[in-house]
Amino acid sequence: MKHLLSIEDLSRGDIEQLLDLTDRFVEVSHRSVPKVPALRGRTVVSLFFEDSTRTRLSFETAAKRLSADVMTFSVGTSSVKKGESLRDTVETISAFGIDAIIIRHRSSGAPLQITRWTDAHVLNAGDGWHQHPTQALLDSYTIRSHHGSLDGLRIGIVGDVKHSRVARSDVQAFTKLGAEVVLVAPATLLPPAIDTWPVTVTHDLDSVLSSLDVCYLLRMQQERMDEALVPSLREYAQLWGLSGQRADRLPDNAIIMHPGPMNRGVEISPEAADRPNSLVTQQVANGVAVRQAALFKLLGSSSQLDALGASEGTTTS
Amino acid sequence: MKHLLSIEDLSRGDIEQLLDLTDRFVEVSHRSVPKVPALRGRTVVSLFFEDSTRTRLSFETAAKRLSADVMTFSVGTSSVKKGESLRDTVETISAFGIDAIIIRHRSSGAPLQITRWTDAHVLNAGDGWHQHPTQALLDSYTIRSHHGSLDGLRIGIVGDVKHSRVARSDVQAFTKLGAEVVLVAPATLLPPAIDTWPVTVTHDLDSVLSSLDVCYLLRMQQERMDEALVPSLREYAQLWGLSGQRADRLPDNAIIMHPGPMNRGVEISPEAADRPNSLVTQQVANGVAVRQAALFKLLGSSSQLDALGASEGTTTS
Amino acid sequence: MKHLLSIEDLSRGDIEQLLDLTDRFVEVSHRSVPKVPALRGRTVVSLFFEDSTRTRLSFETAAKRLSADVMTFSVGTSSVKKGESLRDTVETISAFGIDAIIIRHRSSGAPLQITRWTDAHVLNAGDGWHQHPTQALLDSYTIRSHHGSLDGLRIGIVGDVKHSRVARSDVQAFTKLGAEVVLVAPATLLPPAIDTWPVTVTHDLDSVLSSLDVCYLLRMQQERMDEALVPSLREYAQLWGLSGQRADRLPDNAIIMHPGPMNRGVEISPEAADRPNSLVTQQVANGVAVRQAALFKLLGSSSQLDALGASEGTTTS
Repeated sequence: MKHLLSIEDLSRGDIEQLLDLTDRFVEVSHRSVPKVPALRGRTVVSLFFEDSTRTRLSFETAAKRLSADVMTFSVGTSSVKKGESLRDTVETISAFGIDAIIIRHRSSGAPLQITRWTDAHVLNAGDGWHQHPTQALLDSYTIRSHHGSLDGLRIGIVGDVKHSRVARSDVQAFTKLGAEVVLVAPATLLPPAIDTWPVTVTHDLDSVLSSLDVCYLLRMQQERMDEALVPSLREYAQLWGLSGQRADRLPDNAIIMHPGPMNRGVEISPEAADRPNSLVTQQVANGVAVRQAALFKLLGSSSQLDALGASEGTTTS
Repeated sequence: MKHLLSIEDLSRGDIEQLLDLTDRFVEVSHRSVPKVPALRGRTVVSLFFEDSTRTRLSFETAAKRLSADVMTFSVGTSSVKKGESLRDTVETISAFGIDAIIIRHRSSGAPLQITRWTDAHVLNAGDGWHQHPTQALLDSYTIRSHHGSLDGLRIGIVGDVKHSRVARSDVQAFTKLGAEVVLVAPATLLPPAIDTWPVTVTHDLDSVLSSLDVCYLLRMQQERMDEALVPSLREYAQLWGLSGQRADRLPDNAIIMHPGPMNRGVEISPEAADRPNSLVTQQVANGVAVRQAALFKLLGSSSQLDALGASEGTTTS
Repeated sequence: MKHLLSIEDLSRGDIEQLLDLTDRFVEVSHRSVPKVPALRGRTVVSLFFEDSTRTRLSFETAAKRLSADVMTFSVGTSSVKKGESLRDTVETISAFGIDAIIIRHRSSGAPLQITRWTDAHVLNAGDGWHQHPTQALLDSYTIRSHHGSLDGLRIGIVGDVKHSRVARSDVQAFTKLGAEVVLVAPATLLPPAIDTWPVTVTHDLDSVLSSLDVCYLLRMQQERMDEALVPSLREYAQLWGLSGQRADRLPDNAIIMHPGPMNRGVEISPEAADRPNSLVTQQVANGVAVRQAALFKLLGSSSQLDALGASEGTTTS
């Protein structure tokens, strides 16, 4: 595996191998020194054309815990602003001699495109409405940790599927791992080609709640209101938001998930967000370990796998 | 000690212990490799809701000299802008598995509030008009280094006391350490409850100069002019600014201090700022050591105290 | 050598020593762990008053590969904005106990000026129209790597010489190393005192192409159009841009160079920029090694030169 661009490129076996590797890094994270020397001397660059402090810091934390050097290419203040092409930016960064580029870009396909211009490993941290593979991996890992396996689970993904790379990646990962996915959204927030997705669709959240093992709320973007795709945030919350009352109707062992940052009071109410079976914070924690697994899988060598047994502290003292 | 939120929480003994620990880090700073492995593998996040490059870099330098990993959570480009709550931000950062949060916030009490939402250690880097405890510690350390002790000293704090968290923290620290504090300010720049402070007050700088062991100038904010709390910067400088002539009237062994950045020509003239008994630069230097002491006190273990004897270079080579 | 401020300060011997040292770091860059412990425990601050992500990241990559700690002083969010003087900023940073300041500033001479206010080593990363010494070193290194030596080479520098610190530094470095320089520019883009430069001048690019060993294109700033120094970007490209056809007329062994970021279609066409004898990407790669050499020369000790033999990985495992 040279790059991590899309869940589409991964087999069920690939995904499971990454989740198993994540188990190792979750174990490392509980040590007093949660750091391993696996990627010492490697340089990882984060190249974010869209702001996302939480995703960027999650990746950077993961890289640092592998002892890699991390550089942040801040697009806002760079020559990108002066009209430099994506290709020239990538070729310049690559010429620094870096090992991996973590890219977020508003254009679908940008991560794939830059693999032609660099020898570095490329990790997609979200491209347009297309893919967000590490989000799907951390979501899968979180579900697997709770339910043991995704096989046979029924997972509801609720909200703005149309504009959501998270939804696209999650549907692919969840179904590859054996789950059944039901999308819950108003017709205006479903993609045109929804018929070709391996999912069932409903507009009625209340009709499916009691059958779900996972209720996954998507973030509702304010822009959708401006585009008149939904009448108002209040009406959206009434019809498709997970209130406390709705959360009560989920099965006992069901879990609530959200990719963050949450719009409390819109797609999820505080009463639903803060109950024990809401695993939003757990998703964030797993995100670091999943990204460690992804970076290690791409940049590490199998011989270094043993080095995971030793924390940095142990090694140097 | 789990957090460092306010000087109010510290006893004289606590403060003195931190200043003694600072001595150790000042000693370390003079080594050819001024770095110790005390916090290797720990992660410290700076979360600044108000810009303050100098305080942030001082903390980050301190953390790096303890071999901690440092992450900067840049509020300007984060989901905080999209309306994410402080609680969700803190819970997200905490979920990354970090060890300490260094927070600056415009609301008094925000640092205390976030301790409820995280297991990490919290260090207050300035909250509203409330507290700036590491500034008070570095000021106390600077005075102690010069005068040997604060016991019995007479310290003048001059300027905008009303809006100053530095003044609040300094008054508490200086008086706990045995000094007498006199505040010098126009009535409009004194807080309403000044009667309850353990200080004396005067509006006349010239009347106290010859009795001061320390003359501490506060930064004059341009906003105060706009609010008409002082007539003009020029008049303010004439009445409450430390000119060279005024500095001449300080006792021989007295020192001049300022938290920076200085408004040269307003609260302090270049003639006063640049003379040998002005310790402004020394305050900055001590700030790094004091913050190392604070971070080490909160995050380090007493067994690691011995490790301070060894520089990073010594350990790894 | 305490500072690196200007190519003017360097003898031919100094330059050659830095280029020889660069050879060592290029060698290090090809290792699996391209990092050496030479500056472990040293702190380097980048202080950029003009945005330049590529130059800043190049320096920061260089410093990290020497195991130095790196701090970015972001001027945009600092107290510089509140009117703090350059002197107070530099004295504050210096008081943190840092070892080197890498400064970019729009005023010619700012790097020299700050050497009076700090004990740290100062590296000029570009000051006004004055100097950009590491650019000249990396350009010289790139030419030497290709041609073996600069002695007797004929180097054309094409474009906006007047406003270019790159041109000033390059002319000095190239001629010190024995090359002949011909400047190619419209009269409006030549500096007034051009008669005193050790160069020949022409306005006609086509007349010199076949005689050049190096064709170095300068970046054309959009501002020059606004100032009416050239009629239009299109006319500029026609008269002074390196098209594919013009590139064909260069001698077989000639190389094409550009400091980046390129304005494709203005001073250089894609057909010229992307051919094998265009070394633009090689310049970027050499930039990191040259900056490692400069940092090591200023901050390292000759006894550490041997440590270059050992990569970080080798040392700690």
